[in-house]
Amino acid sequence: MLFERCAVIGIGMIGGSFALAAKREGLVDTVVGMARTESTLRQARDLSAADETTSDAAAAVEGADLVYLAAPVGAIPALLRTIANTVPEGCLVTDAGSTKREIVAAAADLPAHCAFIGGHPMAGSEQAGIGAADPDLFRGCSYFLTPDTQTNADALALLRRLVEGIGAEPIIIDRDEHDRVMAATSHLPHMLAAALCATLAEFEGDLPRFSGPGLRDSTRVALGPEDLWRDILLSNADNVTARLGELRRMLDEFEGALEAGDGDGLAALLEGARRLRERLVG
Amino acid sequence: MLFERCAVIGIGMIGGSFALAAKREGLVDTVVGMARTESTLRQARDLSAADETTSDAAAAVEGADLVYLAAPVGAIPALLRTIANTVPEGCLVTDAGSTKREIVAAAADLPAHCAFIGGHPMAGSEQAGIGAADPDLFRGCSYFLTPDTQTNADALALLRRLVEGIGAEPIIIDRDEHDRVMAATSHLPHMLAAALCATLAEFEGDLPRFSGPGLRDSTRVALGPEDLWRDILLSNADNVTARLGELRRMLDEFEGALEAGDGDGLAALLEGARRLRERLVG
Repeated sequence: MLFERCAVIGIGMIGGSFALAAKREGLVDTVVGMARTESTLRQARDLSAADETTSDAAAAVEGADLVYLAAPVGAIPALLRTIANTVPEGCLVTDAGSTKREIVAAAADLPAHCAFIGGHPMAGSEQAGIGAADPDLFRGCSYFLTPDTQTNADALALLRRLVEGIGAEPIIIDRDEHDRVMAATSHLPHMLAAALCATLAEFEGDLPRFSGPGLRDSTRVALGPEDLWRDILLSNADNVTARLGELRRMLDEFEGALEAGDGDGLAALLEGARRLRERLVG
Repeated sequence: MLFERCAVIGIGMIGGSFALAAKREGLVDTVVGMARTESTLRQARDLSAADETTSDAAAAVEGADLVYLAAPVGAIPALLRTIANTVPEGCLVTDAGSTKREIVAAAADLPAHCAFIGGHPMAGSEQAGIGAADPDLFRGCSYFLTPDTQTNADALALLRRLVEGIGAEPIIIDRDEHDRVMAATSHLPHMLAAALCATLAEFEGDLPRFSGPGLRDSTRVALGPEDLWRDILLSNADNVTARLGELRRMLDEFEGALEAGDGDGLAALLEGARRLRERLVG
């Protein structure tokens, strides 16, 4: 048992999956689930993701030795302010937000008697909500942790054990570098998939007949909830815009080869892309 | 039995899958498989995709009442010229190429005593080669046919029965419209996935740790063979370029909302994209 009492703030797919995994693996004893709606809280209790529930974030963290913030990225800074007065001494606070700079900056307002370490599990799907919670969600996934020079070494060691305990691979990374990498491997790809879907409006009724498994895979991420992704993109706008510039330059190269009828050049671009894709595995 | 003797020219994944399905369903009796290499022909015989094999396309079509051209798009026009002198009277000639304008135009040089109808099964994967042949490959897929006002009605009816017989849904479409639609739903998405992969070079060694299932799905099509896709893109360059213009305009809209910090605008764009993606099903 690493923690006696864990408050999961925003107990949806990620928070619920964490709670189920941490309880199953004997890493936390009691989970207090917090969400805004009673229906979510009831589901969390029914699934045994939470032992106690409340819609009051400040109350949820009372007596906790672990706070796991799993609300949407855009809601976490305000939640950090909400819990600042009630988070107990010695409590480890972490989050599961997809971007880290804004959240880590907001966490500076937590009292000095607790330890904050930013986190981001590269898990999840286009689904959302406690109904999609799965104790195996984190199995084999990368789990970024963004400690800094101020971070308590014991707290970091404890968090690593927690992450490993739910089956994920902890990766220590600088918060700025995290957001830069995620813009390239997740946020721009998401925006791109959405933009691609948006260009297909004219075919709307015919899309099932006019498309195959390739397009479905290419655009699957665009099924993700727009409020979540709006926040992720806005909180990483500078990096996403920079990567979009990279992509535009690459599209110019492809288009140049295409317009010139340069088969060798086009094949070389496609081959380079294929080789990089092969590195992704999966 | 719809056909006595079918020549499959270019017996790889698509041609081999067609042969296996057509034989299993009792739609063709004897399959003559043509490919350039003896190793492919041996595999075709071993898999019972072909009863006879040859590396000579002109010889393969002798005595055939069905010719199924399943070579890469770029190779089909030359193959049509190769078989023009030996294709028998009354023979139905069709192809499985991913673009239709160039191929249908090249088919005008076939003798008047045979019937050509362009085809395109929306089946396949990033795999290639006879080793990936699967008699169920076409099950449930859209199968475009591009007859024109000159097309023999009996030949078209026969081809429809063949397509339905292998489990696919025939869709009659104009050849120009086919290529325009495919640019939007397949060719531009492919180029986009490749361009996205190409922007990730700087992370190469870290890609497995730095990416999740979303990026893997988004870029899966970029695993496709570059020689095949070079030909597809070059043979549809005008339409692909036009769709790329559409995409660039859409990316400008997303970027505009992002740079303005316009959360409502960004959410609306993401929501519209999600609703279109939901139409794709699958």
